Amino acid sequence: MEKSNVQVPLRERDISSTKDISQAVITRLPRYFRYLGDLKDAGVERISSQELSRIMRVTASQVRQDFNHFGGFGQQGYGYNVEYLYVEIAKILGLNQLHRLIIIGAGNLGQALANYMNFEKRGFIITGIFDINTELIGEKIRNIPIQPMEKMKSFVQENDVDIAVLTVPKSSAIKVAEQLVECGIRGIWNFAHIDLEVPDNVLVENVHLSDSLMKLSYLISK
Amino acid sequence: MEKSNVQVPLRERDISSTKDISQAVITRLPRYFRYLGDLKDAGVERISSQELSRIMRVTASQVRQDFNHFGGFGQQGYGYNVEYLYVEIAKILGLNQLHRLIIIGAGNLGQALANYMNFEKRGFIITGIFDINTELIGEKIRNIPIQPMEKMKSFVQENDVDIAVLTVPKSSAIKVAEQLVECGIRGIWNFAHIDLEVPDNVLVENVHLSDSLMKLSYLISK
Repeated sequence: MEKSNVQVPLRERDISSTKDISQAVITRLPRYFRYLGDLKDAGVERISSQELSRIMRVTASQVRQDFNHFGGFGQQGYGYNVEYLYVEIAKILGLNQLHRLIIIGAGNLGQALANYMNFEKRGFIITGIFDINTELIGEKIRNIPIQPMEKMKSFVQENDVDIAVLTVPKSSAIKVAEQLVECGIRGIWNFAHIDLEVPDNVLVENVHLSDSLMKLSYLISK
Repeated sequence: MEKSNVQVPLRERDISSTKDISQAVITRLPRYFRYLGDLKDAGVERISSQELSRIMRVTASQVRQDFNHFGGFGQQGYGYNVEYLYVEIAKILGLNQLHRLIIIGAGNLGQALANYMNFEKRGFIITGIFDINTELIGEKIRNIPIQPMEKMKSFVQENDVDIAVLTVPKSSAIKVAEQLVECGIRGIWNFAHIDLEVPDNVLVENVHLSDSLMKLSYLISK
């Protein structure tokens, strides 16, 4: 068999080593958080697992199972306290602490993400932007200067950056990811159209926009 | 199950049978397509299900099961023909036909997506951009004028638009989605931070960026 040049994605994270929580549960957590925020804003104080299940479009049993991974969050008979549940899920999601982000790649997508204020409301603070394009160096996005790639490593280490947002082309993503691993980054939010290979202690969350659009194309083409 | 040693042409797809295909399989299809494109570009002509499974990080049995949903794509002993598989999966994904897109919401994200050329390479043609902000009306992105929302319905119907990219704030997403349904849109690529309720004949693919970032936050906070 011919050897392929294709990058091999990191194996599925072994969630079992961290409390047996499945990817499906983890994926639902931000949705719970989003809906609870809406309920809280609407002045709702308590909600039953039945009602929450209807909003989430899962079974009430699934809601209770999901919450049991994290201690249960209160009695079923009286329903859940919305404010309490919201705060507890925020903690589980790590939203009770600030996250310092850098964006690598100041192209269209990198700029759009840098300009998106809502991430900051959740404690995701963009502290640095980096690009290889020398013409962009010194330009500012929301008062954050674009810096050359050579500055990235020291910046990450001196500014307690824990997440890197990767919006570089596929061709340079692997090299940049290697540099980020060397920097000691903890998480990579990867928008490059490639699956990255990184050590187990670095977490990658992919946003493959083209994959998503092709999936929609499939669904409407049936 | 095809047992012949000669590669057989794919039989006519049974459209009804594709209704039973799970979300997990559908989600893997664009990844197969992406890796097969990389293999093709690297000059690889044939690949075994074992090798493909290694790249895809699923079992070889899973690869064969996935492909059996679509007729199998040829015989296991000699492996799959990469070019053939690439073309066939492109067809399944609906990439053998052009898709005409509009973007609704010409903010940072809408502009970034409008400027992203790679979608066009796959046949996704952005034909119109719409916004409620009167100051943006008449401005152009890649020579596509930004039009007022009032023009959307007639534009969709007159220009054979099948996909709407929704990059409006959460607060207006539901109303715009309702208008899109009335327009007869077939697919909505939803970036608004809300889950849309639409009739069954309209397909929605969500890109919830904040959910994705919170998931990463969870993973690095463990």
